[in-house]
Amino acid sequence: MQYHVDGELRDADEATVNVRDRGFLYGDAAFETLRAYGGEVFEWAAHAERLRETCETLELDHDLTDEDLRSRIDETLAANDIDEAYVRLSVTRGVQPGKLTPSEEIDPTVVVIVKELPRGGRGSDSVWDGPATLQTVRTQRVADRAIPANAKTHNYLNGILARLELRATGADEALVLDADGHLAEGATSNLFFVDGQALKTPSLDGPVLPGVTRSVVLNLARSEEIPVEEGTYTLDDVRNADEVFLTNTTWEIRPVDTVDGLDVDGGPVTALLSKLYDERVEAYY
Amino acid sequence: MQYHVDGELRDADEATVNVRDRGFLYGDAAFETLRAYGGEVFEWAAHAERLRETCETLELDHDLTDEDLRSRIDETLAANDIDEAYVRLSVTRGVQPGKLTPSEEIDPTVVVIVKELPRGGRGSDSVWDGPATLQTVRTQRVADRAIPANAKTHNYLNGILARLELRATGADEALVLDADGHLAEGATSNLFFVDGQALKTPSLDGPVLPGVTRSVVLNLARSEEIPVEEGTYTLDDVRNADEVFLTNTTWEIRPVDTVDGLDVDGGPVTALLSKLYDERVEAYY
Repeated sequence: MQYHVDGELRDADEATVNVRDRGFLYGDAAFETLRAYGGEVFEWAAHAERLRETCETLELDHDLTDEDLRSRIDETLAANDIDEAYVRLSVTRGVQPGKLTPSEEIDPTVVVIVKELPRGGRGSDSVWDGPATLQTVRTQRVADRAIPANAKTHNYLNGILARLELRATGADEALVLDADGHLAEGATSNLFFVDGQALKTPSLDGPVLPGVTRSVVLNLARSEEIPVEEGTYTLDDVRNADEVFLTNTTWEIRPVDTVDGLDVDGGPVTALLSKLYDERVEAYY
Repeated sequence: MQYHVDGELRDADEATVNVRDRGFLYGDAAFETLRAYGGEVFEWAAHAERLRETCETLELDHDLTDEDLRSRIDETLAANDIDEAYVRLSVTRGVQPGKLTPSEEIDPTVVVIVKELPRGGRGSDSVWDGPATLQTVRTQRVADRAIPANAKTHNYLNGILARLELRATGADEALVLDADGHLAEGATSNLFFVDGQALKTPSLDGPVLPGVTRSVVLNLARSEEIPVEEGTYTLDDVRNADEVFLTNTTWEIRPVDTVDGLDVDGGPVTALLSKLYDERVEAYY
């Protein structure tokens, strides 16, 4: 396997960053997780836009264009001759003199990691083994005032601590609440649920990542005239829901089986949205 | 300059970690900043203990002994032939299969970075240019329930965002409050102030790093029978204080000149503690 590091393709074992790179020292880096279907990156414009927003939040003013970043991804996919892939694109603040305060002048480090990942489209297997078992954790989401949730960065310990709490439970995704006890999201996924009235998901007013898949799913629902509500919800709301599912770029739409050990059902809305999402993916072939 | 990476000394430019190392991908790593005086690491036992606590919080169960870690630092100092040094020791969770949830079996990556740094002891210049100008920032400390503050990790964006707010102000350290508006600490330092009654510092009950220098200073104060109070304080408390200073391993004790543009004075307690601290350092020669 070959990765793209700092402008060059390198064998995976020799794909490295300097130990003084701020991406390593401090997690001072923006990233995106993407999927390629049929050799083409899915929802590139949305990912490029979010990466720009993360870099704005971090005041990480690189001179890289979207086209430049995209071409590094494309080169990496081509070099490995894979069409169905997981892609991780990172832009770090690079090496700077040894102070926490960043210099304005930066020499960013761009890293593209890829991995073969079978498509989840119609008629093929999903990347997940089965529906998710969801477990509420004690670890709370980092507040927006501490690190804005719209920034997707290499500071991922909050999600790791949430996942570590699952070791004792056997659950495979953590349901993370905010400091007020409201539903935020999964460790690596956005949360959706359906009750009698609407498809509901925690609003971006809370500490919630503006997931690209989240946004695709909301648009698909609106196009089908399924009532949609982004709001502030409690654990009771999701426990009493008719259907619960999670979204992220690799999982796409993943149904949830249990929440804190209580059964929740799949249902027609999850099934319809999954079908529509598959059709979107199918269009790449 | 040579650094120690994964068991080997390497030239600084070739001191790298793999891009799949979790220390890079997620900031999934513990670290310590240390000083060497006269060729010997200062307060090693306290740093080794805090590193252990960080690894416990992260459930990063490496098999490295304190002696092993210490010898990697000593080898790095010897290879570079420097006695007065800044030292950064990191232990990452290493490379693991591509999931956020950590595997229990780990192959940690140990990195030692050193840099010559003149001692701050009696009769020599301090590493800082002058007293600190301190500025309250909007960025709040990450809550303990999100990431415990006693863990010193490669997730340092909260401090970076705080420092970025200083760009417009000319101040050189951010004063960070907790979510309730109480004083927490500086971006890379612990806060102390003196009023008519006592030497005061925010308690570790809040989101405050248990600084090694903080602990040394508290012990020095107690040994001089200076009344000490660890509590919950507001911005008004520090603005109205008789003396204000900051501590960290590289700065040692650094007086504060202004808080949010308002003058605060140095004074006899800061001077006495600085003298006592210098004597502790002096004992290394």
